[in-house]
Amino acid sequence: MNDVKTRDMTKESAGNFFEDFKLGQEIVHATPRTVTVGDVSLFTALYSSRFAVQSSDAFAQAIGYPVAPIDDMLVFHLVLGKTVPDISRNAIANLGYADLRFLKPVYPGDTLASTTEIIGLKENSNRKNGTVYVRSTGRNQRGEPVLSFARWVMVNKRDESSPAPEPHVPELIAQVEASRLGHALPMLNLEAYDYALAGSSKKWGDYQVGDKIDHVDGQTIEEAEHQLATRLYQNTARVHFNQHIEAQGRFKRRIVYGGHVISIARALSFNGLANAFHVAAINGGRHVAPSFAGDTIYAWSDVIDKAELPGRSDMGALRLRLFAVKDRNCADFPGRRADGSYEDGVVLDLDCWVALPR
Amino acid sequence: MNDVKTRDMTKESAGNFFEDFKLGQEIVHATPRTVTVGDVSLFTALYSSRFAVQSSDAFAQAIGYPVAPIDDMLVFHLVLGKTVPDISRNAIANLGYADLRFLKPVYPGDTLASTTEIIGLKENSNRKNGTVYVRSTGRNQRGEPVLSFARWVMVNKRDESSPAPEPHVPELIAQVEASRLGHALPMLNLEAYDYALAGSSKKWGDYQVGDKIDHVDGQTIEEAEHQLATRLYQNTARVHFNQHIEAQGRFKRRIVYGGHVISIARALSFNGLANAFHVAAINGGRHVAPSFAGDTIYAWSDVIDKAELPGRSDMGALRLRLFAVKDRNCADFPGRRADGSYEDGVVLDLDCWVALPR
Amino acid sequence: MNDVKTRDMTKESAGNFFEDFKLGQEIVHATPRTVTVGDVSLFTALYSSRFAVQSSDAFAQAIGYPVAPIDDMLVFHLVLGKTVPDISRNAIANLGYADLRFLKPVYPGDTLASTTEIIGLKENSNRKNGTVYVRSTGRNQRGEPVLSFARWVMVNKRDESSPAPEPHVPELIAQVEASRLGHALPMLNLEAYDYALAGSSKKWGDYQVGDKIDHVDGQTIEEAEHQLATRLYQNTARVHFNQHIEAQGRFKRRIVYGGHVISIARALSFNGLANAFHVAAINGGRHVAPSFAGDTIYAWSDVIDKAELPGRSDMGALRLRLFAVKDRNCADFPGRRADGSYEDGVVLDLDCWVALPR
Repeated sequence: MNDVKTRDMTKESAGNFFEDFKLGQEIVHATPRTVTVGDVSLFTALYSSRFAVQSSDAFAQAIGYPVAPIDDMLVFHLVLGKTVPDISRNAIANLGYADLRFLKPVYPGDTLASTTEIIGLKENSNRKNGTVYVRSTGRNQRGEPVLSFARWVMVNKRDESSPAPEPHVPELIAQVEASRLGHALPMLNLEAYDYALAGSSKKWGDYQVGDKIDHVDGQTIEEAEHQLATRLYQNTARVHFNQHIEAQGRFKRRIVYGGHVISIARALSFNGLANAFHVAAINGGRHVAPSFAGDTIYAWSDVIDKAELPGRSDMGALRLRLFAVKDRNCADFPGRRADGSYEDGVVLDLDCWVALPR
Repeated sequence: MNDVKTRDMTKESAGNFFEDFKLGQEIVHATPRTVTVGDVSLFTALYSSRFAVQSSDAFAQAIGYPVAPIDDMLVFHLVLGKTVPDISRNAIANLGYADLRFLKPVYPGDTLASTTEIIGLKENSNRKNGTVYVRSTGRNQRGEPVLSFARWVMVNKRDESSPAPEPHVPELIAQVEASRLGHALPMLNLEAYDYALAGSSKKWGDYQVGDKIDHVDGQTIEEAEHQLATRLYQNTARVHFNQHIEAQGRFKRRIVYGGHVISIARALSFNGLANAFHVAAINGGRHVAPSFAGDTIYAWSDVIDKAELPGRSDMGALRLRLFAVKDRNCADFPGRRADGSYEDGVVLDLDCWVALPR
Repeated sequence: MNDVKTRDMTKESAGNFFEDFKLGQEIVHATPRTVTVGDVSLFTALYSSRFAVQSSDAFAQAIGYPVAPIDDMLVFHLVLGKTVPDISRNAIANLGYADLRFLKPVYPGDTLASTTEIIGLKENSNRKNGTVYVRSTGRNQRGEPVLSFARWVMVNKRDESSPAPEPHVPELIAQVEASRLGHALPMLNLEAYDYALAGSSKKWGDYQVGDKIDHVDGQTIEEAEHQLATRLYQNTARVHFNQHIEAQGRFKRRIVYGGHVISIARALSFNGLANAFHVAAINGGRHVAPSFAGDTIYAWSDVIDKAELPGRSDMGALRLRLFAVKDRNCADFPGRRADGSYEDGVVLDLDCWVALPR
């Protein structure tokens, strides 16, 4: 690892600006974090996810896990949260995700830490800001990668007169090939998988490309809830926490962490996808509009592809577009129009692979 | 178990309606749940219960528990919560509870699952809805019953023209006989029970039938709090979570889960009943009026009976009417009038047996 | 221990009034409490503290801890919380703290209990209330002291005509000598201390007396958050919880527990003091003004002294004035004026010793 960036030119930090990033630079993020059953309980209190594998040690052990694994999205939030003080504290916008893959299961007691490589830089023509492309990796206490993803954010410059770096835009894949899925999924004994306890008899084979699934329920977000969530992830992006500043901002309000909305939608998706207990990959995601306290989030899924998983006959993958929609139920499947615009209320368009028993 | 009901005629579920239930049917509810110290901490943060046995491993071990047992009401909320998606998701009203008994202690690491038998059905004369009587049982990972209770709920019909089932109203006992109490209470070494640490020197013998105890303090409910609680219990009743729908409803607001109010009242009851660390049974309960965010809950107890516990001299039982009252302190013991109506502010009338050292 | 006070002259308790306290009296407080990883997760969700030692078992073990220790302020809140029902339930004001020292590390699984000695009493000339001086001690399940502190509170009399006690004002030290610090800090292997993971390369030697450090970020407080926190600590002071009463009070609102503000400020101080992972002592503290839901808390630190720790070359101490300020960022270091008054917005002035690697 060369050119390790220190975060403390002064003792306190206002975060990095566009000109602080250098192509190829690797950043070790602060504050490794041991994940515990306490985090699991809070995650349940925040989203009420009901996937049996993550909820029950007994269920997980019956099918071959040593203990209930940590919810994939909790792993994502923790790994991402560590990158925020260095990468996106001064971000104007989170522009996208790509090639997000879960690589190892995480269990209570594991300690997660994050590193990020700067894989692209491109100053905008306004010279006020630019896009930073990164690949972040979460590792456990044995140094094994558990999660890897690319993302790109628009970051302000500290000084408009700073020279622009050589532009470099990395090639980012639009979807994770099914052949690369499944690394975080141990071989499972599905003989012991109890479909009544799991909440549905529907398996991989029961879903078809083109299926649209309304997840029915809605969840209203409170300020205290999204703040508790985002602090749990040690994510320091100030737009989520500081009403004193946000009252002067564009929305006059704190903005809900986009990952909070993802987790609400994922938890709601249990109703209709009860056996899709594992998120194998995220191909891309777009926070179509911000969410605020008081919004009620609904969700629906569009099954856009199906695939076998390499070398295994126990589990299969579905590629979903998971839409979160605010203050509007999803019986009519509000999504993206042919012209690329979104229907009213859509706040999230997430393209992901989930795995479920065959 | 015959006639197991599946929850997925379609992939997603809108819950069961009155005509979906059949007498004698048994339902295996989804999502077994491992209870952990994380749940215990959240329960403390939600209610601040101060019973020493549940708060301290050291205290519990001194008197003979392997470790601090899980609070009885947390066990109840978890077992009940699992039944909601199948039983009461479309309930108009929770009409009552009966014969609720705790049967085994639950410890961190235990996994709870729930099943329900339909024990009665009676369509209402309006033909729009009917009463469903059920007995639900919570079991641990060894299949041992830890909690059993009857309840009855009014549920809408999907289709008013559906034929009415043969009416069957089960006999439900009005009170649990003292001879059936105590199964969840191991034999204890009360020599080691430290009354100073427990918070009071008052034992079973110090209470008399007719005692009225004001629990003094009040707790104001916030939206985020009751939502966190109810999600922690994986209870999906939408009236608690969905302001987008409830804004159009009768109250214009989300309704607080009745069990949340029970747990507030139970926690407040520490002040006056500090040694009544175990709820042995609930004879019946009535949510007299709904509670909402912003309400301040007070509580008081009326000692209506006393009993020895079968085969043991260490512990005795008090039968309490535990009243929760909103926005009114309980110095004047507001309860039920002679005509059966309730005094202003009463939201809960819970008839229960608690156990305390003799 | 002589003259143990019982809390239950009646079964319920309205707390102690000024005339209930006696010089030399020792009070055993109710409800020992096992601290768990569940509490740690809630603490993270409430404050988002990012000190690596408390966040990561792996980090803590590398430098010589058996496991990540419990955050010092969580220990303080739990030990203090137990004293509230007996000491400060009827307090009009928390007047001050002195000589607060952490004496042993606390780990998940430890059980904390508190005792208090009455070390001073002085009735006010108005005869309506008086000052009670106490020394409280928190002990673990082995009876080892983990925390000791003096505090003094103004408490109402039950009856103005009660005779005044002989006045006794104890001598309280204005600062903990550095020679008395470090008892809760095991000898550490700082070879293994990873400054990149800790979030800063700044060590003890990099700070100078006179340094002023803006901690940059702000945190907006929600009602649900401070209530969850204060209940987690089993602190029963009613001003924090009961809007029904407080609506009639001086502020018309619930008052945020002062310790909640301390923990927000302490967590914010990570930005600028990332290696100051241990609070060794609190010399004194003043809640300059109350905080309420909706306030945004910022913080800054003034380095007012430096000291070596007795008998060790691995760690050193900084004496800080940690100021919390509401609805005002701290770039201009708002603090105390020469005339002793405070600048606008200051809510907390905490004088403490923190320890960090040399």
